[in-house]
Amino acid sequence: MAKVTYDVSVSLDGFTTGPNDSPELGLGEGGERLHEWLFDLASWREMHGREGGERGPESDLLEESFSGTGAVVIGKRMFANAERPWGEEPPFHMPVFVVTHEERRPLEKGETTFHFVTEGVERAIALARDAAGEDDVAIGGGSSVATQALAAGLLDEFQLHIVPVTLGGGVRLFEGLPERQIELEPTRVLDTGGVTHIRYRVAK
Amino acid sequence: MAKVTYDVSVSLDGFTTGPNDSPELGLGEGGERLHEWLFDLASWREMHGREGGERGPESDLLEESFSGTGAVVIGKRMFANAERPWGEEPPFHMPVFVVTHEERRPLEKGETTFHFVTEGVERAIALARDAAGEDDVAIGGGSSVATQALAAGLLDEFQLHIVPVTLGGGVRLFEGLPERQIELEPTRVLDTGGVTHIRYRVAK
Repeated sequence: MAKVTYDVSVSLDGFTTGPNDSPELGLGEGGERLHEWLFDLASWREMHGREGGERGPESDLLEESFSGTGAVVIGKRMFANAERPWGEEPPFHMPVFVVTHEERRPLEKGETTFHFVTEGVERAIALARDAAGEDDVAIGGGSSVATQALAAGLLDEFQLHIVPVTLGGGVRLFEGLPERQIELEPTRVLDTGGVTHIRYRVAK
Repeated sequence: MAKVTYDVSVSLDGFTTGPNDSPELGLGEGGERLHEWLFDLASWREMHGREGGERGPESDLLEESFSGTGAVVIGKRMFANAERPWGEEPPFHMPVFVVTHEERRPLEKGETTFHFVTEGVERAIALARDAAGEDDVAIGGGSSVATQALAAGLLDEFQLHIVPVTLGGGVRLFEGLPERQIELEPTRVLDTGGVTHIRYRVAK
């Protein structure tokens, strides 16, 4: 069965952006540091329409995360912060469901269509599952949607890309989970000498 | 030269205790889950005067962390929460410096002497360095002392024991660092199929 997954880069003090993320600052002060590991990967460059880059375990890992994905769910905050840098050809090339309070018609940009969902995370994931068919649904962004999905038992797997830096502020990973233990099972650890990638399955 | 080190078990949502840690609840609701990986290790049992237990990479890792240590620095919160469970023979068997606001005479318990330091973290680390001689100084506890040491450039290495669980509340790891990037270098990753142990060196 298709899975709901989440990939996120996180600092050692638990932040998924730097302080003061915004449409102007994007990922906040220093937040780009969290994604530096991506920029030279061949698979990342390919997603963004560029050639070249490094092939290897990290490039394969990223490719694997995206190749089985048929639809994406993100929050309003990520959409607002990233709409401008994405430009006219966002890197998804598939339907993207944006959880928001604002009703809005679908927005087509290149091969990506953004659908705006005002009925919450659960509904957005259901719509994304329909759109993805047998493929996986990937949650994107800084953590609010993923946190709600994890709390509601709707997340099947996630992968932390643990970046060896502290940022001192920003959007926290998994902020506001319920005060009970949710058990995970690590299914793969990739040690690159820099970022450590750990994939977890949510115990059901 | 002797190093200042920190070892800490942390949940995937960034907590080093469960919610509501206190002298009555110890590590807070569910907080013991973070230390479960320790209890069956041969080296842990030995530190606590017990026999048996599992030998292997995790037991070696713990032994390595403690064998080069000559003094410990902890915060008042850890001391208050753990004094009772430690009983008359705390597991340190070396001088322990407690950062506190309360003046108090040294307290001897078994082979451990607690010294109470009212002049802050920097002074406590300096005293611990003197006491440790050529051995390392280990910071213990839930993160306040380690955070201050990291921010002040006094921490040389730390090791995260990343436990595959979320807790939804508690004392956060590295809460309140300055809003600037502190770069770390991972020097070892140990994947056990459960807890992932990552050791970092602080870039100077």
